[in-house]
This record gives sequence, C-alpha cells and structure tokens, in this order.
Amino acid sequence: MEDVIVVYKEKPELNNPILIEGLPGVGNVGKLAAEHLVDQLKGTKFIEIFSKYFPPQVLVEDSGVVKLVNNEMYYVKRDGSANDLIILIGDYQGLTPDGQYELADRMLRIAQEFKVGMTFTLGGYGLGKLIEKPRVLGAVSHEDLVTEMKEFGVTFSKGEPGSGIVGASGLLLGLGKVYGMRSVCLMGETSGYFVDPKAAQAVLEVLSNVLKVKIDFSDLEDKAEQIDMLTSKLKETEPQQEPRKEDLGYIG
Amino acid sequence: MEDVIVVYKEKPELNNPILIEGLPGVGNVGKLAAEHLVDQLKGTKFIEIFSKYFPPQVLVEDSGVVKLVNNEMYYVKRDGSANDLIILIGDYQGLTPDGQYELADRMLRIAQEFKVGMTFTLGGYGLGKLIEKPRVLGAVSHEDLVTEMKEFGVTFSKGEPGSGIVGASGLLLGLGKVYGMRSVCLMGETSGYFVDPKAAQAVLEVLSNVLKVKIDFSDLEDKAEQIDMLTSKLKETEPQQEPRKEDLGYIG
Amino acid sequence: MEDVIVVYKEKPELNNPILIEGLPGVGNVGKLAAEHLVDQLKGTKFIEIFSKYFPPQVLVEDSGVVKLVNNEMYYVKRDGSANDLIILIGDYQGLTPDGQYELADRMLRIAQEFKVGMTFTLGGYGLGKLIEKPRVLGAVSHEDLVTEMKEFGVTFSKGEPGSGIVGASGLLLGLGKVYGMRSVCLMGETSGYFVDPKAAQAVLEVLSNVLKVKIDFSDLEDKAEQIDMLTSKLKETEPQQEPRKEDLGYIG
Amino acid sequence: MEDVIVVYKEKPELNNPILIEGLPGVGNVGKLAAEHLVDQLKGTKFIEIFSKYFPPQVLVEDSGVVKLVNNEMYYVKRDGSANDLIILIGDYQGLTPDGQYELADRMLRIAQEFKVGMTFTLGGYGLGKLIEKPRVLGAVSHEDLVTEMKEFGVTFSKGEPGSGIVGASGLLLGLGKVYGMRSVCLMGETSGYFVDPKAAQAVLEVLSNVLKVKIDFSDLEDKAEQIDMLTSKLKETEPQQEPRKEDLGYIG
Repeated sequence: MEDVIVVYKEKPELNNPILIEGLPGVGNVGKLAAEHLVDQLKGTKFIEIFSKYFPPQVLVEDSGVVKLVNNEMYYVKRDGSANDLIILIGDYQGLTPDGQYELADRMLRIAQEFKVGMTFTLGGYGLGKLIEKPRVLGAVSHEDLVTEMKEFGVTFSKGEPGSGIVGASGLLLGLGKVYGMRSVCLMGETSGYFVDPKAAQAVLEVLSNVLKVKIDFSDLEDKAEQIDMLTSKLKETEPQQEPRKEDLGYIG
Repeated sequence: MEDVIVVYKEKPELNNPILIEGLPGVGNVGKLAAEHLVDQLKGTKFIEIFSKYFPPQVLVEDSGVVKLVNNEMYYVKRDGSANDLIILIGDYQGLTPDGQYELADRMLRIAQEFKVGMTFTLGGYGLGKLIEKPRVLGAVSHEDLVTEMKEFGVTFSKGEPGSGIVGASGLLLGLGKVYGMRSVCLMGETSGYFVDPKAAQAVLEVLSNVLKVKIDFSDLEDKAEQIDMLTSKLKETEPQQEPRKEDLGYIG
Repeated sequence: MEDVIVVYKEKPELNNPILIEGLPGVGNVGKLAAEHLVDQLKGTKFIEIFSKYFPPQVLVEDSGVVKLVNNEMYYVKRDGSANDLIILIGDYQGLTPDGQYELADRMLRIAQEFKVGMTFTLGGYGLGKLIEKPRVLGAVSHEDLVTEMKEFGVTFSKGEPGSGIVGASGLLLGLGKVYGMRSVCLMGETSGYFVDPKAAQAVLEVLSNVLKVKIDFSDLEDKAEQIDMLTSKLKETEPQQEPRKEDLGYIG
Repeated sequence: MEDVIVVYKEKPELNNPILIEGLPGVGNVGKLAAEHLVDQLKGTKFIEIFSKYFPPQVLVEDSGVVKLVNNEMYYVKRDGSANDLIILIGDYQGLTPDGQYELADRMLRIAQEFKVGMTFTLGGYGLGKLIEKPRVLGAVSHEDLVTEMKEFGVTFSKGEPGSGIVGASGLLLGLGKVYGMRSVCLMGETSGYFVDPKAAQAVLEVLSNVLKVKIDFSDLEDKAEQIDMLTSKLKETEPQQEPRKEDLGYIG
C-alpha cells in the first residue's frame, strides 16, 4: 500500500493560502487551537490523510460508525484579497521518527501544490509547572519573520525552547525550510500536566491578529474553567502532583 | 522478498462471498469463533499468507513437520443463492503498526479480487472483570448497517468501545471503508483474563443468524466449561487475580 | 544501499551441495557446531553477507584490523559422488523480525543458485535446567524426513519444542518449505545458561553420521570441560543460579 | 521522501582529500575534536545531510531561527601538495541500526565522489572510570596502517575495544572496507561520565601530527578545566558517582 494515502474530497481554488497546523502534542495546545479555528471559521474538509505511520486503529463514533484514524485538512475562503486558509488537524502524529518525516514531507508537498506561501504551526511549550498567564513563544524559518512576529506580541527568548521543537510543528518548519518555504511556530506556555485551553487561546489570540480574523473564545474559556476546577480539586485531594505522561510526549 | 507472500492453493469461483475475519486478540474471541466456523462448515483452505511482518518462527506439528507462521483463508460454498463465505484465520497478527496496515491492505485486495460485498470482523471487547452473559457490541462502516445489525441483537452503545478498535478487526473496517467496502465488527464482551469460548459463542450466535447457517456449539461449550472450572479453582487458591498481560494486548 | 550485500570471493562448482547453518542462538549450540565443522573439514570461505539488519558494528581483530559484522559461507569439496557442503556461520542474526525474514530469503536464494538439495539447520533447545546427556531433537520440512532422521538417533517428541523454532534455524526450514526446499533442524538440548559445547557435540555426532564425515571432537570436549569446571565453581559459590539473559534469546 | 537528503552548498575541487568524521558518541570525544578542527582550520560548509533516520526535531538558534537537525561536511583547502580535508560533524547519529547503515553508506558515496583516499573516524573509548592521561587507541581497515599509526603514538592493544566499535566511527571503517576504502579509527580514552575535552585533545594531537596541521588547543583546555572543576565539586558533594546514561550510548 502507499505509505501515505491522500484522499481529496474536493480540489478548491485557493487564493494565496496560509497553512495552519495543530496536531496532538504537549497540553494538546496546537490541536485545541486549530480545531477551534476550524469551528469558528466554518472550515470545509477537503483532504483526508491516512497512513501506515498512524496507529492501526479505528475510532467509533456515537452513531456506531467507525473512522480510521487520520489527519485532515480544511479550507477557509476569505473575502477580497485576504489569504485563504488551510487548517491541518488530526487524531495522531506519526508513531515513528521516520513516519513523522514521511508525513511532514507529504503535507509540505500538498502545501506546495496549493501554492502555500506561509505556514503557522501551533503547539505547547511544556514548563512542568502551573502558570497564570501563558506567553506565546516563537520560532521561525527566516530571520525577518522574528521582527514581524514580535509586533504581534510573540516572545523570542534566547535558549527557549532549549531542546528544540520535536514533532510535526518542528518538522514542518525545518523540513519546509529545506524546501525553501517560510513558516512560524507559535508555542503557548503550558504546564503540560493537562489539556490546556488557556494556552490554546493565547496562541489563537496572536494568530487571529496576524490573520485578521475575529474569533469568539467563549468555548475555549469554558473548557479552561472546567480544567481549572479540576486542578483545584486535585490540589485539595492530592498532596503531590505528578505530570501525566501522555501529555508530556513532545511539543506538537 | 515480497513483504506479504500470498500462496493460492486454488482459485475457486465464489458466489458473492462474505469475508469473515477472526485473528488472535483479546480473549482470542475472534480466533475461537472463526476457527469454530471453519470446523463446522468444513471450510476448504485456498490461500496461505506469509509475511515478514509476522514473527520469524515456525510451529512444529505433532508429526515433527514445521509450518511457517501464517494467516489462512478458507472458503465455504453454499447452496442456491446463499452467499459463499471466505473465513480468515491465523497464528498471529502483524507485529508492527505498519505491518498491520500492509497486511490489512493485502487482505482487502484479495477480498476485492473475489468481489467480496460484505465483511464481518470478529473480536473481543475486554472489560477487565468477569461477566456472566456477554453482550455482542457492534461497529460498522456505513450507518444503515446499524439498524440491520440491531435486529440480530447486536448492541450499539455510545462511548463503547471508548478507545476504538485496534488491530486487524478495526483496520479491515476502517481501511476497507477508505476503499469503499462495507463491513461490521462484532465484539463479544470478555474479561480479557482468559481465552474466552463463551464470548466466541455469543459472537457466533449472532453471526450464524445473520448468515443463516446452523452451528453446533457443543465444542465451544465444552471449552467454556473447562475455562470455568479453571477460573473457579484459581479463585479458591489465589486471593487476588491479575489479568494475564498477553491476553490484553488489543481488541483483535 | 542494498538491504543485504552479498560479496562472492569465489563461485565454486559444487556437486549437489548440502547447506548447513549454525548461527548464534540458545547456548550458541548451532554456532559452535557449524564453526567446528568448518575447522575440521577445512572449509573455504567464498561468500560474505553484510546487511543493515545486522548491528552497526565492527569487530577489532588482534591485529588491529576491523571486520564489519557479517554472516559467511564456506564450501567443502568432497571425493567422488559425496555431496559437497556449504556451511553458513556468522557473528549475529538479523536484529529485527523483518530483517530475519529478508536475510533468510536471501540465503535461500543463494542456496537455490548453487542447487542445494537439502539443508540442515543447527540450534539449541533450551530446557532451563542442567542436563547430563543432551538428546538431539528434530523438526523437518517434509514428513518422510522424520523416518530418515530417526535412524540417526534424532528424537521427534510430540509437543517439543512447544513454542516452535524462532530465528534463522526455523526460518530457513519454514520459508524454504514455502519455496519447495527440503530441510531438517537439529536441536541439541541445553540448559541455555551457558555456551554449550556438549550440546554442539551431540548435534555434530548426528550430523557427521548423516553426512558420512569423520569429526575429531577433542576441541569441543576441551571446551565442555572448561564450562563444566566453571559451572561447578559457580554452584559452590552461588547459592542460587539464574540464566544469563543473553543466552536465552531464542533457538538459533 | 528520499531517505537521506544531501544538499550541496558548493561543489569544490578538492586535492586528494582526507575525510575526518566526528559525530556525537561516548564522551562526545569525536564531536568535540572534529568541531575544534573545523574552527581552527576555518572549514567551509559545503554539504548538509538531512534524513528521516535522524530525530524529527528542529533546534532553535539564539536568533529564533530553526535548523532541522542534520550532519554537515566542511572542506579545508591546503597549500601545495598537502591533502585537502573534508570534516564531517553533526547533531545526531542515525536513530536505528538500519538508519546508521544507510547514512554511512551515503557518506561513503560522497567520499568516493570527491575521491577521498583516506578516512579518519574519531571517537571515545569508554572505560567507566576516571583517567589522568588518556591513551589514543587505534583500529584500521588495512594491516599496513597499524605500523604507520604506531609511529604517531597510537596504541593498538589486543582485546581493546573488546566489544568492537559501534556507530558511525565503526561503520565508516567497516562498510568502507567492503567498498575498498582505507581508514583509521582514533579513540581517545574517556570515563564516559562527562563530555570529555581532554580525550578530544589527545585524539587531535595525534591527528594534527598525521595531517601536519597546527592546532591551538587553548579552547579545549579551557573546557577541560571547567569539566575538571565540575567533577571535583561532584566528588565533594556526592558520596557515590554514577555514569550519566546518555553519555554511555556507544563509541561514536
């Protein structure tokens, strides 16, 4: 079989599109942010990506119908000369290092096919401690993007993240750069202990300013409140708190 | 070498065949059920599948003759307009995620070659506790199959199985759906602690009604009795019981 | 690079050759036996097999010269109509299941190239306890070989080895059978705790009778004595003995 | 995607070049030595090697710009008839055994393209204890190189390193030998507990004599002093010392 199967539901004409990636990772920050963006902007699914690098697993929807785990791309058409958007979300990242590379390569080929001129990858930056107001850290493919992003409040901090960026958010930047593509990674600070809607919101606030889109954050705020209640309860009942391993895998 | 080697013993003409899969998995429910079906319906082996995704291992038969571990397909011809059957059983599932995908893909190609119109995958649904009367849970490729299956007593329960279906039983549905094929997964509830003939019987009772075949269950009932005796003894001798790891791998 | 690199030092004309395999495994029984056979029959190295499925490692000889880890084939020419021999020895078996398959497949292709009519694979059968007089167990590709081998004192015992034969010794039989080749696996009983020259000798005694070659066993007997002394000392000093993990990997 | 992506920044004309490899490994001896050589000789980067066998990771430079992890080659032009140099350094070695083989194979192809006549691989030889004056051990592809290297103070010691040489330093020798190439591995003795600039200097002192280049070692000496201070402090505060796992992976 093909290592990566790309199923086109539609081949839309897109105006100078921007690619936005948000796959599972630390605190699920990127995934939460990108899914919220799809919801808010009413994105249309046009590509499904299946692969032997994903787990051999189906999810069962409430209706009883199965869905093979995948990654998906949605497009958003915008008025006038505004860049159209392609938003990449999904159930999993590739299971193996070489699978991660093969998937990122394929996604970049799709981006080139639609003449994507700019990519934003969204992720979390795990700090290992609870934080009140998450900053949004940046990393870029080309130096001139640093100045541009600083204007939107993105923090560039020497030595952060010290261990680099692992997974799709890093690879789309790094491998894309090898292919001559421009991109920015936006990382919301997160404890990494829980799914973190607050960090997702911080990332989206920056991105919505960059993209000039209006986003209603009430859903994310509700989720953040639920998590806050949960963590307060845990603080009361458990004398010491340890990170949940599955949330600390890598920066997505 | 070829990643998957398919040896045809025979190329039978089959009338609108239904594929039934039962490979090793939780409680070996699917394997027990499918092997019992082959015995009862006197299936004829016509395909052997060898692969580098299986363990590098031969089994030694009582005669001293070795058999390279494999998966096998049997066909069952039926009278009149009744669908013929192809039953897939085997020693192992693929060892790696990508091997699982490659094997499922190849099996689906074989199914397409014989113009299979419908697939049933059989497996166990591990509950982690002993149960008296196992239900049979369902998952389907297309929504109209839910109603059809409910008429045969299959349970569709929101949020079950919560973690989806992993392995061949899931992949044949999910990947088959990508290829436009129709299928149903039948999962017998099982503790997952032991090989579970009772769950296999529950699954087969549903399937035999769907297929309109008569099955004698005395063999499975004998095996279930043996397991019951074993578990009662264990309860007496061991103060606490823990699941055997190898039986909890995944839903087959 | 090629997955398996085969370097021919020479392409000898061989008379109806018999292939004999002895690679590392339980108690290193097969390796010891096959290497002893090469020594005794003054085999000539004619093939070197390198592969990315072996460890990325060189061994350093006493001279300071390195040798990339490999498998090697030696040939032995014999007088008159006696079958010539090809003996396969090596530093390692493949590291991964699929690597094991690829290597076995390639070795069988070489065997076919030289028109090998019969293969003997040599290994150990780990019992997990010390034994005085090791039996030699057999497993065969074709049933008529059972009778033939019994005449040479080989034991065929229902249910032994219960878990089958894993690794090159099993695969050459099992995959060879898929390709229509005839073969026998000879397994010397061993504790599996130590390198076991006694089990190697038991295997070679059978094989030398089959092949009608004379073997001087004094070297193996010396080694066995050394091991015996070592084990007696261990018995004295250590109250309880545990198997060394690396020797229990699998039946080679 | 290509398994190994080689990006040429430039295709220099090189005079009978010598390849020098120093990738991460035990005590980072080879990496430190080769990077110091690049600094001292003002090497020019001309090749970048990316691969799916490396981690799916970008590093973030102080400027905020990312760099996909890679291996790199630098060239050094020298006056008159002196051999030009190609120096290979990098962030990582291949993650898997087969990845290591594929990368070494590709690097050797590049070496052949530039008509490299001789290769030096640099690494550490982990002793598991602190040492005052590290020796430099050698291993060679062809026996005549032993005499040559002894004249430069390289030690060839029967049985050292007992377990052979694992990783790029070993493979470039061993696989290169299969391809008919000449090479020497220089291993500086190191505890393996820390990054070891002293061992790197010992290796470079030999290599600089062989290559007839002048090297200023003050940077390495400064680093060695820092490490010495660190280890003295640790000795004071910690009653017992244990090796840091990540530094004991293999001989690079």
